Amino acid sequence: MKKLINDPARYVDEMLEGLVAAFPGLSLGGESGRCVARAQPARDGKVGIATGGGSGHLPLFTGYVGEGLLDACAVGNVFEGPSVQSCIDAIKAADRGAGVLCLYGNYGGDRMNFDMAGEMASADGIECATVLGADDVASAAPDEAEKRRGVAGIVFLYKIAGAAAEAGRDLSEVAGVVRRAAENTRSIGVALSPCRVPTASEPNFRIGDDEMEVGMGIHGEPGISRAALATADAVADIMYERLAAELPLRPGARVAALVNGLGATPLEELLIVWRQIARRLGQAEVTPVTPMIGNYVTSMEMAGASLSLMVLDEELEALMAAPASCPFWTVSP
Amino acid sequence: MKKLINDPARYVDEMLEGLVAAFPGLSLGGESGRCVARAQPARDGKVGIATGGGSGHLPLFTGYVGEGLLDACAVGNVFEGPSVQSCIDAIKAADRGAGVLCLYGNYGGDRMNFDMAGEMASADGIECATVLGADDVASAAPDEAEKRRGVAGIVFLYKIAGAAAEAGRDLSEVAGVVRRAAENTRSIGVALSPCRVPTASEPNFRIGDDEMEVGMGIHGEPGISRAALATADAVADIMYERLAAELPLRPGARVAALVNGLGATPLEELLIVWRQIARRLGQAEVTPVTPMIGNYVTSMEMAGASLSLMVLDEELEALMAAPASCPFWTVSP
Repeated sequence: MKKLINDPARYVDEMLEGLVAAFPGLSLGGESGRCVARAQPARDGKVGIATGGGSGHLPLFTGYVGEGLLDACAVGNVFEGPSVQSCIDAIKAADRGAGVLCLYGNYGGDRMNFDMAGEMASADGIECATVLGADDVASAAPDEAEKRRGVAGIVFLYKIAGAAAEAGRDLSEVAGVVRRAAENTRSIGVALSPCRVPTASEPNFRIGDDEMEVGMGIHGEPGISRAALATADAVADIMYERLAAELPLRPGARVAALVNGLGATPLEELLIVWRQIARRLGQAEVTPVTPMIGNYVTSMEMAGASLSLMVLDEELEALMAAPASCPFWTVSP
Repeated sequence: MKKLINDPARYVDEMLEGLVAAFPGLSLGGESGRCVARAQPARDGKVGIATGGGSGHLPLFTGYVGEGLLDACAVGNVFEGPSVQSCIDAIKAADRGAGVLCLYGNYGGDRMNFDMAGEMASADGIECATVLGADDVASAAPDEAEKRRGVAGIVFLYKIAGAAAEAGRDLSEVAGVVRRAAENTRSIGVALSPCRVPTASEPNFRIGDDEMEVGMGIHGEPGISRAALATADAVADIMYERLAAELPLRPGARVAALVNGLGATPLEELLIVWRQIARRLGQAEVTPVTPMIGNYVTSMEMAGASLSLMVLDEELEALMAAPASCPFWTVSP
């Protein structure tokens, strides 16, 4: 886990400087100095989409600021939630006079700070609504779904939210369709190796050379089992079956699908995993619509993969297909 | 270096099955079964662009098949050149009646097999031209540039070739502009950790916990020096200065730039490297045009990064900006 960095304490700020140096469509600012927003704000009257979260997960969170996606992102330190001030900055940057949807992962610190920021924004006349990404089936039982962590499925929610907002829907409509998308989205991951927070001297967990952790969170939170490393097909089966147990994958269903790399797993291996997921979907007579395969939500140099599925209806499918463009993901018309 | 795979001997074929299962714009076929081509061939009369190479470098090579880029790719085993038959398959799949440019990296086996395939295609009436990617400054001295390896700079050449062909230029014009692009392109990489070929039991090289290899090739070929791991800024400086020594980075120049991850290096770190490259370019009064930051050419789970620069003229800049779309890279109009 050797790192190409300078001062570990400047990791996030230097990353952000590099980000806006590379992509002139993004601006870095706010009172916190930790808010990334579109350099060209969206038109007046569009519902704003704000997010935020800890660093170390690129392209998540801040890499999804762009047309048809997010308006602004509050940026925390590595694996730490964003400050209240950066959440306020993101809400203000996203505001175009039609209210702001705060859409972020279900983590305690993020919720507390976004809730406080939302109250302060409301006092300033900015109407806010909130939808949480809580798609990780491994993090709590189905009857405690409100305790579940957000993982890679939030990328679908960003797409739905961004497309609904660009289409001119009002805040309650945008929040409503994103909630429906969230209810239809589930994820699970498998970790093979840890990562190391730049300011730490040790990896964030230990795992044997022949082990995998099923259901591990993107900060190394414990999963549901530690098992012998299995084949790609077996791992794909485990992930598919956990999601199929909770989603209505009936014959004729259509799904958005993401096989996500956690950082150090080669694209080749993600495609081998996808091969088996595609077979399972085919056996279930479920059609994947423009599957996404790659590193969309990472834990720096962690090895492993996750599967996210969102069951589509006509409206969700149309919103997924709408054009979008950010530095690390493009959906062409 | 735990892998999400099934049978190591089936790594490449299963990867290809996953690729075409994920991306219906690609087809897998040819007599070799190892040729990836556009599912919808380009229009008659377009110059074909064929490439090929060993597996283990995704998105390179086969991930760049798509509109405005490649027509077909011959796929070898991991870190092994494609067979003559797969090269023939790629040339035939790329042929739309206006000749085919064979554009691939400067490796002995690839050259031998593509040369033989080109001769056989010529006998079948398909005119072929060849341009080699040989951008790695660390692999031979400037006066032996014909010995240099091809690394990430070939992505620029794919873009130039694809755009020139889509614009309706003839084979000699396409080959001419790609040769000029190649003459203006240089790359260098730094490796921090090895990878493991799926059929091997050991990593492809050894390196100390506090070391880096400057100039290492994408198969683990030795570089120009092994040194103590330096800061991101120092690594960026080393890479920038090696390229600046060979390229006319004069005030007012415009360049295409790629900070490429070799597989396991987080996007955050690539952005920190870019931050310093951008500063150096700024000091030299050189303007980077839409820099690319990410995993474009990998060595499976190798950690490290490379820098590629191509000095632009008006024509090359226009070709870089032309629309293009493949599974892992989109250039929007």
